[in-house]
Amino acid sequence: MSDSLLGALAAARIIDLAQPLREGMPCSPTHPGFHLALTRRHGDAARPDGMTGSHELIVFGGHVGTHMDALSHVAVDGRFHGGAPVTVENGRYASHGIDEVAPMVCRGVLVDVPALRGVGRLPAGEPVTAEDLRNADVRPGDVVLIRTGWAQLWHDRDAYLGTDSGVPGLTADGAQHLAAAGVRAVGADTIALEHVPAGSGLASLPVHRILLQDNGINLIEVMNLEPLAQAGAGEFVFVGAPLPIVGATGAPIRPLALVEGPPDRVTPG
Amino acid sequence: MSDSLLGALAAARIIDLAQPLREGMPCSPTHPGFHLALTRRHGDAARPDGMTGSHELIVFGGHVGTHMDALSHVAVDGRFHGGAPVTVENGRYASHGIDEVAPMVCRGVLVDVPALRGVGRLPAGEPVTAEDLRNADVRPGDVVLIRTGWAQLWHDRDAYLGTDSGVPGLTADGAQHLAAAGVRAVGADTIALEHVPAGSGLASLPVHRILLQDNGINLIEVMNLEPLAQAGAGEFVFVGAPLPIVGATGAPIRPLALVEGPPDRVTPG
Amino acid sequence: MSDSLLGALAAARIIDLAQPLREGMPCSPTHPGFHLALTRRHGDAARPDGMTGSHELIVFGGHVGTHMDALSHVAVDGRFHGGAPVTVENGRYASHGIDEVAPMVCRGVLVDVPALRGVGRLPAGEPVTAEDLRNADVRPGDVVLIRTGWAQLWHDRDAYLGTDSGVPGLTADGAQHLAAAGVRAVGADTIALEHVPAGSGLASLPVHRILLQDNGINLIEVMNLEPLAQAGAGEFVFVGAPLPIVGATGAPIRPLALVEGPPDRVTPG
Amino acid sequence: MSDSLLGALAAARIIDLAQPLREGMPCSPTHPGFHLALTRRHGDAARPDGMTGSHELIVFGGHVGTHMDALSHVAVDGRFHGGAPVTVENGRYASHGIDEVAPMVCRGVLVDVPALRGVGRLPAGEPVTAEDLRNADVRPGDVVLIRTGWAQLWHDRDAYLGTDSGVPGLTADGAQHLAAAGVRAVGADTIALEHVPAGSGLASLPVHRILLQDNGINLIEVMNLEPLAQAGAGEFVFVGAPLPIVGATGAPIRPLALVEGPPDRVTPG
Repeated sequence: MSDSLLGALAAARIIDLAQPLREGMPCSPTHPGFHLALTRRHGDAARPDGMTGSHELIVFGGHVGTHMDALSHVAVDGRFHGGAPVTVENGRYASHGIDEVAPMVCRGVLVDVPALRGVGRLPAGEPVTAEDLRNADVRPGDVVLIRTGWAQLWHDRDAYLGTDSGVPGLTADGAQHLAAAGVRAVGADTIALEHVPAGSGLASLPVHRILLQDNGINLIEVMNLEPLAQAGAGEFVFVGAPLPIVGATGAPIRPLALVEGPPDRVTPG
Repeated sequence: MSDSLLGALAAARIIDLAQPLREGMPCSPTHPGFHLALTRRHGDAARPDGMTGSHELIVFGGHVGTHMDALSHVAVDGRFHGGAPVTVENGRYASHGIDEVAPMVCRGVLVDVPALRGVGRLPAGEPVTAEDLRNADVRPGDVVLIRTGWAQLWHDRDAYLGTDSGVPGLTADGAQHLAAAGVRAVGADTIALEHVPAGSGLASLPVHRILLQDNGINLIEVMNLEPLAQAGAGEFVFVGAPLPIVGATGAPIRPLALVEGPPDRVTPG
Repeated sequence: MSDSLLGALAAARIIDLAQPLREGMPCSPTHPGFHLALTRRHGDAARPDGMTGSHELIVFGGHVGTHMDALSHVAVDGRFHGGAPVTVENGRYASHGIDEVAPMVCRGVLVDVPALRGVGRLPAGEPVTAEDLRNADVRPGDVVLIRTGWAQLWHDRDAYLGTDSGVPGLTADGAQHLAAAGVRAVGADTIALEHVPAGSGLASLPVHRILLQDNGINLIEVMNLEPLAQAGAGEFVFVGAPLPIVGATGAPIRPLALVEGPPDRVTPG
Repeated sequence: MSDSLLGALAAARIIDLAQPLREGMPCSPTHPGFHLALTRRHGDAARPDGMTGSHELIVFGGHVGTHMDALSHVAVDGRFHGGAPVTVENGRYASHGIDEVAPMVCRGVLVDVPALRGVGRLPAGEPVTAEDLRNADVRPGDVVLIRTGWAQLWHDRDAYLGTDSGVPGLTADGAQHLAAAGVRAVGADTIALEHVPAGSGLASLPVHRILLQDNGINLIEVMNLEPLAQAGAGEFVFVGAPLPIVGATGAPIRPLALVEGPPDRVTPG
């Protein structure tokens, strides 16, 4: 290997964009939440040399925690993006599953909406429109991450979900803008990425339809974009690949941003 | 961002090192296997505009599929690596959990043992010793991946697990060699990474003890190293971060190798 | 078989005392809730003769829905009822598990507290004391069921759980009264059986301690006692056996009451 | 309550017909097996008075362990028993679910086939035909239990499942005979109740079709009929009600037999 790649990366700072997974964390009631129980614990049974092992049972879903939506997550009139009919085989989707998403190592752009508006965090139910995206230098193949500041509410489940108050996020015209720009994926630091007005719930999800079904663009939800914003990194290398769950409609992902700077390792608090 | 990092990466080829996750795939009987069922399917309930959503319920464990072992996976006499006593809080480990592993973007080395020996795949129960590692250019902080060719058996569950016949893998002296070299993590394309002689089962796991407990070096198991070997990449950039499950003894990971070459995207078949 | 037993039973009315199990039903946040997803559906794959099969994946816990608490549910200073030390084997309790509970076919008594007080349902946080039980004809070996009317709130999750407002139920002196009478089990139509004053949550559970740990008396929670009250059956044959889950701290149960009367079959609505 | 019912029952012996539920028990690979992990253990967190609580996370399916098949388990050409079209609502069947099965307290008949043939247990792949049932005193509304002796193999998973060797059980003509007699349910001590010839697997399930779809008769599988046979009880009171899981295709059940005799309590070993 030439030294250029490793050298370039050695000088990069790694920023973790995932929220930690634990029991009781925010999760839409549509999904099963996150459950973990230790099946065996140290001390349950020791080998003659004193060594012990421990492991766990885990229950969750493809849309729990920081995750990517597959194209199979949404259909219109029984058809996926591109017109293929919805087909189930062996209890999962025969096409458009999250396992079809190739690992992403590409240019990333952060749209820091609170910074644009001079606030620490967007209010509940606040729309993020095409106007907010106008000055972002978005190029074909980019992954665009939209910060609302909502990750600050991660430890306040009700506030984070915004069931009554709504959630800030991307509007339909904003989604059209990004689709027209040819982006590869769009992420956000909220439960559903898109604008949820107060009191409206998730009955209508136009951004999911525009990005996933109309344009074949994957979504990434429940990200933690605070460290990236603090690093002031509007442009970075995005690295992310969802768990390759065959035929699933979504899967957890641990996305990273590689930014210029000292090779500090930034980990979740 | 300077163009050097993105430019260097744009010229890299991305090789996926994970096995796909699906029902019935090989899994040690110690662990719960992988189970997925669609909770809602397209067509179950359509919105007025014809849009439908689908999602799933998933059951697995921290040591199912391609995964990383946390330091909390192994203890000796009730102590983790470094001597800290095993402590459980809220039903999970209070320290040494997989969430403490920082994302890895670093130099990677492939030890292609079948290639060294001129075979397509190591036989069942074959040891991989310090002698096999002697000529590998291993440096402090590297992730070292040991190929046995066992990923070729992924679709033959019994053969892959090698319950009776044993599994090829790293021996205690091989593990000592890598620990002395100061590696950051060690991975392999088998169920338990280490040498399992025919008929011995997993009653004794000296390599787990040496790497995890004695030296604080994480393991990565159930990798797919065939595409990396086919690319002839002995040296590469390793990128990997396990799902940050708080206090877990292990977690799924989708590791990638970035190698010189045309920017083909290699995905699991 | 003599005809007496069958003849006697043929004249009995069967009353179902269980709540139906479904996604989203009330469940303490301590427990994982109830999750079901169809693994295969009719139509996924047809046999040549047109026959299709369907089945599901289920996630829940030992204390979800109508269930019985095992003696292993509670310990004091590391000891179960009778003084045996808490011991875990193979990841479950080596003794006092729910599988040790023999099936119950015995006399049952309904204490209909709202009827005693002339109300339709007890208010939130209302205590049910020894005084309320004084006139009940309770005999050694009986199963005593305490109705609060709370099953009427089954479809209002927040009201049923009473997180802020409290839940009506048995007090410590009521539990002592029943223990002194030598009952075999005590059931109720609430989430925790015992009195939960407004704002106190489940921090203190004296009735669980008195019945399970001090006296070895099993509890049955989340029952539906409305049909039994409507039948005016103060005395009946109780039939119930929890799922025999080895070493579990609780298990679902579908208890029945057999009462005099026409052989109507009463099923859950 | 008149004393007759309670008196008659007090003189009855209770025989448990369920197999215990534990990790690693026999289960068809079609289903997820049984998984339990303690979420909290005694000692994890003590209240000031020394009291501790423990509970678990459970994963299984509607056809794991001793269970009853609902009419929704089988369809033919998209229709359930009676001709109703298969309909899914909220991710489960809108009709014919296991929750529609009324609790059963009725006459039970044991057909002890090994006893009829003078053997301890039927061989693998042995058919149980209408001829075997000819002398059984079966009446309308009965629950008929067919013993093969296969419960003796419960602790030998491979032998019990009989994947290669086949499993003894009811043939199509035997099922027709029982349907013509007007039985309410049919149970057996094997994984699939019906005759599975060596090497044929579960590709064809005529008995499931005849009983569930053609005749609306529920099946009970994975019973333990050894204690009932040892008691020599050919006729008894059957008591059984599956967990009322709304819209499920099957559910666990703990069936009991009440037989004449001393009031011994027989529990699983």
